[in-house]
Amino acid sequence: MEQLKKAIRERGKVLSDEVLKVDTFLNHQVDTHLMAEVGKEFALRFKEDGITKVLTIESSGIAPSFMAATDLGVPLIFARKKKSLTLTDNLLVSQVYSFTKQQTNDISVSKDFLTEDDRVLIIDDFLANGQAAFGLIDIVKQAGAHVSGIGIVIEKSFQPGRVKLDEQGYRVESLARLHSLEDGKVTFLDETVSVQS
Amino acid sequence: MEQLKKAIRERGKVLSDEVLKVDTFLNHQVDTHLMAEVGKEFALRFKEDGITKVLTIESSGIAPSFMAATDLGVPLIFARKKKSLTLTDNLLVSQVYSFTKQQTNDISVSKDFLTEDDRVLIIDDFLANGQAAFGLIDIVKQAGAHVSGIGIVIEKSFQPGRVKLDEQGYRVESLARLHSLEDGKVTFLDETVSVQS
Repeated sequence: MEQLKKAIRERGKVLSDEVLKVDTFLNHQVDTHLMAEVGKEFALRFKEDGITKVLTIESSGIAPSFMAATDLGVPLIFARKKKSLTLTDNLLVSQVYSFTKQQTNDISVSKDFLTEDDRVLIIDDFLANGQAAFGLIDIVKQAGAHVSGIGIVIEKSFQPGRVKLDEQGYRVESLARLHSLEDGKVTFLDETVSVQS
Repeated sequence: MEQLKKAIRERGKVLSDEVLKVDTFLNHQVDTHLMAEVGKEFALRFKEDGITKVLTIESSGIAPSFMAATDLGVPLIFARKKKSLTLTDNLLVSQVYSFTKQQTNDISVSKDFLTEDDRVLIIDDFLANGQAAFGLIDIVKQAGAHVSGIGIVIEKSFQPGRVKLDEQGYRVESLARLHSLEDGKVTFLDETVSVQS
């Protein structure tokens, strides 16, 4: 998605070989026009798949998935990272290990909102090691629902998440695929010369 | 806003005299059609006010404010409740006491995204004691920016937040105002018989 790649190039900040800061348009300040376009693009790519729910994870997943769910005409569910007063039982729970924070957190979704009839589109802001994606997949499976696909705003293709999801046969649609952040420079996968046969 | 009041009546759940659970359409599962209408209503009410930024707080504030910022054509900023790896300094910080959780938490916004030229619309899902609203106001003031108004999805008018904001001269636009949750029943302010002169 060219508009997104342009934002990453011009407004993203490479903090290290593995960390891209995008708080100017995605996960702190939100460029609502761009995130609306991102959501529409997800909806377009999954419009033939009979999606009944979009599932994301708080907080950064909400903005890019809002318009996807709106355009698909289905509810958006955001998994909670911690328990709230009014959400204490009746939960589907999975564990997500965060490499950046080096800790494991529970994520949870109420059993009321996912059933075995659901066809679920999972959306998240980043795909790196795949921990969040597999946590969300686990929750969908616990509900007996179907994972129709995974929509990712920014994929760090140099980390193993994408390969692991591919290996397990999941359909992944990433709107920007980062080949490398080395030397402080963003390179996208489709800008590299392929040497594979 | 009739559509919102209908959702509260039909899909909300009164847990006590003070707690209304709305996780079927607002803060866990999101009715994206309804929240898009909520956002458009905020945009309509503040369209003449020269708003340059919409400010909310993660996570439940993001969905109802997304379309407000989109329609106003301005960025959405969500205050963070905890520090992230890529957001460690250069912060405007305020404290918010949560009566339900009985603890004080920092909320923070990067100094990069609010300047003294900004005219800010603050949006939140609930207004009860006003703690979150005053925390966000404090952050806007620290930046030297102007608070143009406060948009609230559901106001618990029987708790003191609204009165405190009124007393300090802030413009508050609440789309649903709850008079009472007593006896397990939702009563809206505009459904009560006024005995005031």
